Amino acid sequence: MKGLTIDQLTIGQNASFAKTITEADVYMFAGITGDFNPAHVNEDYAKDTIFKGRIAHGMLAAGLISAVLGMQLPGPGSIYMKQDLKFTAPVKFNDTITATVTVKEKIEEKNRVILDCVVTNQDGAVVLSGEALIMPPK
Amino acid sequence: MKGLTIDQLTIGQNASFAKTITEADVYMFAGITGDFNPAHVNEDYAKDTIFKGRIAHGMLAAGLISAVLGMQLPGPGSIYMKQDLKFTAPVKFNDTITATVTVKEKIEEKNRVILDCVVTNQDGAVVLSGEALIMPPK
Amino acid sequence: MKGLTIDQLTIGQNASFAKTITEADVYMFAGITGDFNPAHVNEDYAKDTIFKGRIAHGMLAAGLISAVLGMQLPGPGSIYMKQDLKFTAPVKFNDTITATVTVKEKIEEKNRVILDCVVTNQDGAVVLSGEALIMPPK
Amino acid sequence: MKGLTIDQLTIGQNASFAKTITEADVYMFAGITGDFNPAHVNEDYAKDTIFKGRIAHGMLAAGLISAVLGMQLPGPGSIYMKQDLKFTAPVKFNDTITATVTVKEKIEEKNRVILDCVVTNQDGAVVLSGEALIMPPK
Repeated sequence: MKGLTIDQLTIGQNASFAKTITEADVYMFAGITGDFNPAHVNEDYAKDTIFKGRIAHGMLAAGLISAVLGMQLPGPGSIYMKQDLKFTAPVKFNDTITATVTVKEKIEEKNRVILDCVVTNQDGAVVLSGEALIMPPK
Repeated sequence: MKGLTIDQLTIGQNASFAKTITEADVYMFAGITGDFNPAHVNEDYAKDTIFKGRIAHGMLAAGLISAVLGMQLPGPGSIYMKQDLKFTAPVKFNDTITATVTVKEKIEEKNRVILDCVVTNQDGAVVLSGEALIMPPK
Repeated sequence: MKGLTIDQLTIGQNASFAKTITEADVYMFAGITGDFNPAHVNEDYAKDTIFKGRIAHGMLAAGLISAVLGMQLPGPGSIYMKQDLKFTAPVKFNDTITATVTVKEKIEEKNRVILDCVVTNQDGAVVLSGEALIMPPK
Repeated sequence: MKGLTIDQLTIGQNASFAKTITEADVYMFAGITGDFNPAHVNEDYAKDTIFKGRIAHGMLAAGLISAVLGMQLPGPGSIYMKQDLKFTAPVKFNDTITATVTVKEKIEEKNRVILDCVVTNQDGAVVLSGEALIMPPK
């Protein structure tokens, strides 16, 4: 139950996690975070927006990035320091999204690693991208 | 059900949302995102980490920022474009955290607004901070 | 709130519980058990499998057997000792499944009872079968 | 997103998943399966049983075995054929349980694999054991 140390990480190494995002996911996410933005939970409102219906919370998609970082690459024992996120397309209900993280840079003297993070949907469109700064386990 | 337009926003304007984060919140968040990092769901492991017990997912705290942006400031109709996040302290089970967003800069020609985002706990410690880039409703 | 003792049980006695299994059930089950097998939560993957779409976890169907044993036959106070399970057909989202348990054998000197367990779907197909060994309440 | 084929499996190979089982887990499990046995959801009743309090559903612990089989060993694409379960000790609320599966036997001509399955708690006690029969992916 210990992730990869900085010595065990190589530039270009990557890992992924995918899930179909359902209405139930979005509703439970709203219930946990208190984010009842009508874009997420009001179909009557959402059908008249540019997205033509309710969409998932961006932070739900970001949660899949966190899942890959904390469980796979670098994995358990990592400390999450920074994450920047660029939301580029909506995640609609029943979209299947895949979060992929890739080792971009190692800062060995500080025990830090920068990972490229991208979330795509079933059509290959990028819905979310950004960089994570992680302190991997020692 | 329409948020504030860029003309209705003023620098320094702010809004907040607070919630006590429970074990059930963290477990449901794990269930939605697939993030079963032992730091979040394995007390036997977590008691021996530097945090001395299970902690909430950073993205759960970030979800409260999204709640304020999407429901209050600027509110419904906003498009979430970018968010950067700096995780500075753990959120422990039963911590009461407050997400506050403050209008920092208006880019009127592009209809964009930058907001300072901070999440603090019941002791006033900053657990998460960053900036959001939002396109407010027209 | 006490189930049937071995003297109150008769060979052939049976009880049932039925429920339509929804996407939300399967997603919450994944969230509790950590079982994010793509067969259960990734439609993009699952549509190309022999089942042509996402299916419920087998242990979710098994949970309905446990419900009948613990609530009806023999009911509260029973100790669940053994269960064997044979998974014979998939449970698809929105299938209505019925778990039925039937008293098969009584081992009175040891206070044990063996029950036949079967779960069928709305078409009568057996999706799961097996035997339970129970110590009924005294 | 494909698990190990029979040729890639070796006798003795193993994989694990661990989680602290909370009251919220047990309550959601009850809600999904309909198993409201008072041993699981009625503290007033359960405090007078031999377990001195509410306990988790045995099938919830079995769900962690399924998680390891379907996600890790053999992993995605496996068909779950049989499972036998022997419940040997209760899982109390807040117990941290670890499901471990180990390749025991390969039946190559039929593309079947038998795995030993065991779930232990934080004290090393076996709460559940049994064997799984799996058809690994081709």
